[in-house]
Amino acid sequence: MSLLIDNIGELFTADPTLGVLHDAAVVADEGHIVWIGPNTAAPETDERLDAGGRAVIPGFVDSHAHLVFAGDRSAEFAARMSGEPYTGGGIRTTVAATREASDEGLRANTSQLTTEMLAQGTTTVEIKSGYGLTVADEARSLQIASEFTAETTYLGAHTVPSGADPDEYTALACGPMLEACAPHAKWADVFCERGAFDGDQARAVLTASAKAGLALRVHANQLTAGPGVRLAVELGAASADHCTHLTAADVDALASGDTVATLLPGAEFSTRSPYPDARRLIDAGVTVALATDCNPGSSFTSSMAFCIALAVREMRMTPAEALTAATAGGAKALRRKDIGRISVGARADLVVLDAPSHVHLAYRPGTPLVKAVVHDGDIVR
Amino acid sequence: MSLLIDNIGELFTADPTLGVLHDAAVVADEGHIVWIGPNTAAPETDERLDAGGRAVIPGFVDSHAHLVFAGDRSAEFAARMSGEPYTGGGIRTTVAATREASDEGLRANTSQLTTEMLAQGTTTVEIKSGYGLTVADEARSLQIASEFTAETTYLGAHTVPSGADPDEYTALACGPMLEACAPHAKWADVFCERGAFDGDQARAVLTASAKAGLALRVHANQLTAGPGVRLAVELGAASADHCTHLTAADVDALASGDTVATLLPGAEFSTRSPYPDARRLIDAGVTVALATDCNPGSSFTSSMAFCIALAVREMRMTPAEALTAATAGGAKALRRKDIGRISVGARADLVVLDAPSHVHLAYRPGTPLVKAVVHDGDIVR
Ligand SMILES: [Zn+2]
Ligand SMILES: [Zn+2]
Repeated sequence: MSLLIDNIGELFTADPTLGVLHDAAVVADEGHIVWIGPNTAAPETDERLDAGGRAVIPGFVDSHAHLVFAGDRSAEFAARMSGEPYTGGGIRTTVAATREASDEGLRANTSQLTTEMLAQGTTTVEIKSGYGLTVADEARSLQIASEFTAETTYLGAHTVPSGADPDEYTALACGPMLEACAPHAKWADVFCERGAFDGDQARAVLTASAKAGLALRVHANQLTAGPGVRLAVELGAASADHCTHLTAADVDALASGDTVATLLPGAEFSTRSPYPDARRLIDAGVTVALATDCNPGSSFTSSMAFCIALAVREMRMTPAEALTAATAGGAKALRRKDIGRISVGARADLVVLDAPSHVHLAYRPGTPLVKAVVHDGDIVR
Repeated sequence: MSLLIDNIGELFTADPTLGVLHDAAVVADEGHIVWIGPNTAAPETDERLDAGGRAVIPGFVDSHAHLVFAGDRSAEFAARMSGEPYTGGGIRTTVAATREASDEGLRANTSQLTTEMLAQGTTTVEIKSGYGLTVADEARSLQIASEFTAETTYLGAHTVPSGADPDEYTALACGPMLEACAPHAKWADVFCERGAFDGDQARAVLTASAKAGLALRVHANQLTAGPGVRLAVELGAASADHCTHLTAADVDALASGDTVATLLPGAEFSTRSPYPDARRLIDAGVTVALATDCNPGSSFTSSMAFCIALAVREMRMTPAEALTAATAGGAKALRRKDIGRISVGARADLVVLDAPSHVHLAYRPGTPLVKAVVHDGDIVR
């Protein structure tokens, strides 16, 4: 079944060789893009989607999300934002609720969030475990995640569970937990931070995971300028995520390596923290990705458009840089060459915006601008 | 045709005597709310909307929007946010495009924006003129606005048009322009600001407008601590809008009078300016409203939920205060007692959120959370 998307006013390809085209058309067949050209030269196809002069962009690639969980932390959010004391358990609340939840309950929550994301133009999402923190609960989190995406990430080392010894828990995460999880995961991740896992513990989990065949990504330098970023680069991780507190050595390490800096401004928004310095990274030649960090504690947005608006407002990215980071940047952070751009051979994942230009994603913050979503060559919305 | 909305997990009434109810139901008849009570006591009706345990809130009241215009200023936005020089004409671009547009073109643009707003839960919107700046163009802007809302505002004194003498233009706005516009307007507004209209000019337009039977609102203290706020209070305006730069005397004036302070954080977001100090106003006893300021230059959002999220993040309002400001606050800024709250006798304007609590409007920023919209007792989405 071939699909023509024509009358595209602005085609933002996120492909460096193609750039931004005007009055263009795109043909998809068998789930892939097979033709891009001037609107006037568009061929006949089985199906047709008239963009009506609107802008078309690649489907968003959300390369950092925590979607397998149960429970609600809105009261904690409200207390934090209002400066009131809160005696709840933070992440432990989510861990307890996740362990108690049925498979069906976890699946329903993950399904609701991925459906919500797709409706907002996110055609690829990475999903982490990390709220189970037992061998069985981490493995089932990843089994459920793998029902929704190929980009599954083992994050047993998210936090040391209540009452556990940090080194013993690290050994578990490097041993039996990893063994149970590796068959269901493509990636391994560690929260390398003061109060979570230090440099040595993070290194142990990451090297064991690499040995088990998993590719690497790291929660790095969110709250402090710790060793996470340099460790990520040293171990050849695809991405160092957060990158909020960076030393000059961290920026140099990122610039010299192939590790993407994934920025998560939703987390800074929802914790009222200072934003990462995207300009410094871009100017140093680092590839930047944007992702939602969608999770019930620190960033419960599922909107890539919102992250783009924040990146432009708060991180001084241009609208084009921000959209590139939310598509091609996310793809690089997932080491995927088949998504995150509109070019012949790529997967046919595209979004028709209800706007004449990609700039409107930042120019019209908070306003839903998705007119249609094409995923794997099918019109899904 | 009566409508029952039942299985409401959380009913945020924005009515001080009712507060927040749980496990509630609401009945609408002939466009008004006729019954509120426990879910178990819900009566039979013609139609039923099952909220499924979700939160229900009053329809948003967006008391400040500029929707009658033509043209696109996304390139200006992108240049501003990227710190690049821009040689376009700012508001003059919009004025030129609006004058050139056909009635049909202006109507289509206004229709698209009000439709977009209703889909996002805004059941009342105020619409200003202000991009015509000739007698004929202001009058037709208001005629078109009045096709979409009863809350129409004459804003001939938005800016001094290119080439005009400020005092001569003020006289026009107090005379023939007002005369042509008054039949189509409920409100009069002035942009009282350095570079726009000074205190004396603003006073002249507002007093002439009051004499012509219009109620008053003022664009006040957006960029500088000018005379706008005190003038608004002195003249008994329903609202002083922006209130970004306030002296102690301004806060005292607002606290002593009945003028609402309408805060427009979308404008600060999209111009990268400091936000108004909502806490200072609330703590002084001032009624605060939140609105979008939807316009193509400085704030092209149409999302009240986005403004709520900004108010919580940037202006230290609690989620409940922000939602009250976006509903009951907006109603007071429009001197309307029949909207902005859920109580017997009020208009049946309600939104079912795809969330268990109103807190999610700020907890899930950027994420579309509107499950259903009831307007005048009809399910419109
Ligand atoms: Zn994370
Ligand atoms: Zn305005």
